[in-house]
Amino acid sequence: MPELDWSHYERASRHLDNLTKPKGSLGYLEEIARRYVLITEDHEPDLPLKKRVYVFAGDHGVVEEGVSTYPQEVTRQMIYNFLSGGAGINVIARQAGAEVFVVDVGVAGEVEAEGLIRRKICYGTRNLAKEPAMSREEAEKAIRVGMELAEEAAKEGVKLLIPGDMGIGNTTPSACLICHFLREAPEKIVGRGTGVDDEGLAHKIEVVRQALTLHQPKDPVEALAAFGGAEIGAITGLFLGGARHRVPVVVDGFISLAGFLTARALAPGLENYIFCGHVSAENGARVILEKLKLRPIVDLEMRLGEGTGAALASMIIETALRIYREMATFDGAGVARGKEFEQS
Amino acid sequence: MPELDWSHYERASRHLDNLTKPKGSLGYLEEIARRYVLITEDHEPDLPLKKRVYVFAGDHGVVEEGVSTYPQEVTRQMIYNFLSGGAGINVIARQAGAEVFVVDVGVAGEVEAEGLIRRKICYGTRNLAKEPAMSREEAEKAIRVGMELAEEAAKEGVKLLIPGDMGIGNTTPSACLICHFLREAPEKIVGRGTGVDDEGLAHKIEVVRQALTLHQPKDPVEALAAFGGAEIGAITGLFLGGARHRVPVVVDGFISLAGFLTARALAPGLENYIFCGHVSAENGARVILEKLKLRPIVDLEMRLGEGTGAALASMIIETALRIYREMATFDGAGVARGKEFEQS
Repeated sequence: MPELDWSHYERASRHLDNLTKPKGSLGYLEEIARRYVLITEDHEPDLPLKKRVYVFAGDHGVVEEGVSTYPQEVTRQMIYNFLSGGAGINVIARQAGAEVFVVDVGVAGEVEAEGLIRRKICYGTRNLAKEPAMSREEAEKAIRVGMELAEEAAKEGVKLLIPGDMGIGNTTPSACLICHFLREAPEKIVGRGTGVDDEGLAHKIEVVRQALTLHQPKDPVEALAAFGGAEIGAITGLFLGGARHRVPVVVDGFISLAGFLTARALAPGLENYIFCGHVSAENGARVILEKLKLRPIVDLEMRLGEGTGAALASMIIETALRIYREMATFDGAGVARGKEFEQS
Repeated sequence: MPELDWSHYERASRHLDNLTKPKGSLGYLEEIARRYVLITEDHEPDLPLKKRVYVFAGDHGVVEEGVSTYPQEVTRQMIYNFLSGGAGINVIARQAGAEVFVVDVGVAGEVEAEGLIRRKICYGTRNLAKEPAMSREEAEKAIRVGMELAEEAAKEGVKLLIPGDMGIGNTTPSACLICHFLREAPEKIVGRGTGVDDEGLAHKIEVVRQALTLHQPKDPVEALAAFGGAEIGAITGLFLGGARHRVPVVVDGFISLAGFLTARALAPGLENYIFCGHVSAENGARVILEKLKLRPIVDLEMRLGEGTGAALASMIIETALRIYREMATFDGAGVARGKEFEQS
């Protein structure tokens, strides 16, 4: 990762204090602008901001344990929905002015569809409750896909990256990874996913607990392989690639947090290169954010995944940059400063 | 106010449950969409949503008590800044696709500027620490201005109204009104406004306490007159006029809450006709929202006023409506439903 030069942050702070508003009165919007400038070293970000969502799709062998309320074929059906513009992420991305790219990294079976990016690592993972979900090579390959797409996006002028996910069953591998990296108990992290009932939740917690006993990975890539998820691996890579190319990545919900934690285990300090889009309603999300001291931009009890929370937050990030670029200064607008400027 | 027909809310709920996502997984966005449909009775809201900000400007005699860090002429200077597009509200409104109208309801002295709407009630209020800020007639006139502009907006096809405020010193009258209507102690409500120091804050609390003893208003209009603020009165009217014409109004920050509480005292049940845009960083804002059980759409420590928090939230309201209108249904997209649909 490139080093961060905090003098850019200071310079951004000084600029913000010159804008026609009481000091600090735009709150966290000002911090978002400063942080964006720190990461990108760009004091004049182009507007509208070029934003791109990658929805990574993959299937999960663990569905045979009955951890989801939806049948596996929904992963594939949703790909068609993404490509025809009818899913939640399409609608929010249209409002936010973000492109949506859909990537098959691990869907069970072949999917033929125009516009689908095919970067297949596997045809669904194996059942993590019984064996490693992926091989080490598959895990590495998944990470590489995300890194390569981040690089491609950077070359194409993308200025904000949004990782999305689609994969029936993927809250279970995500919960495993989160418990593993944060050393948290499953009952604090596992949630209802698409909507399992109390019995289903208890069963899901048990599946995660057993998987954590079965696998004892020695490094982050082995953990990704054991608990798996091709789309989680690709998201991991997107975080790493974004940081490398100074393109901020917006953390979405529960699956995105699993990818982020995997990436952070590989690249300590990664939290300075990202934004936390929202706090998912999925059980453990708030625990994770508190533990990592990540401040979510919005908190609207969303739990759809696909990148929806991050895409929503991207509008607020863009607004913060617009403030940075377009607000008048006290001198420029002929507005008198308050005494607060003498006090400090 | 027109009556609310909750069958529209139920019908909106059923539509939301048919969209391609786990039930309720878009969280509060779904509630925003249902509430919008309930208020407007429009199941096919036009997009992009026509949004309008009215920034009401007025001056305050109480500034002679030294309650603000900014000189009074800043109210007038900021009007020019609004009209040339350089203020915070202009920038956020551009991002949100909202119009910005600036209305002089009570600025001290004459302001000549192209594009300024002149609906003057007074040339600054009197000092509320010593006498009523406005006469009863002035207070009524201010409310009428807001109601008339809401009606005008409704006729012009505006579908979401955003009240903004500009007035050096206006957190003091707002704090008085909030304490009065909620029967709260000044130290729980009064905040630093544009940025007074500890001594300034203690003084401001004392000014509010004395005003609450000096004036004993017998009805909401008398309270508005006593504690005053032409712009607060106009905001009061905007809430009332919006409700009357089924155009939802988005509560902004501290000043907006004072106007909302005044309007609600005149029209009980008003909380069902509005959205709460954000929670201001000004001391008492969170207390008020908790007491009224209003859920803010965003919470970003903003405290600039001008309508900025509400304008930011308006993007999220529009996103919720876009979800309502544009997401595919399970049947339409050929996506299988989860077991959650059997369970309920």
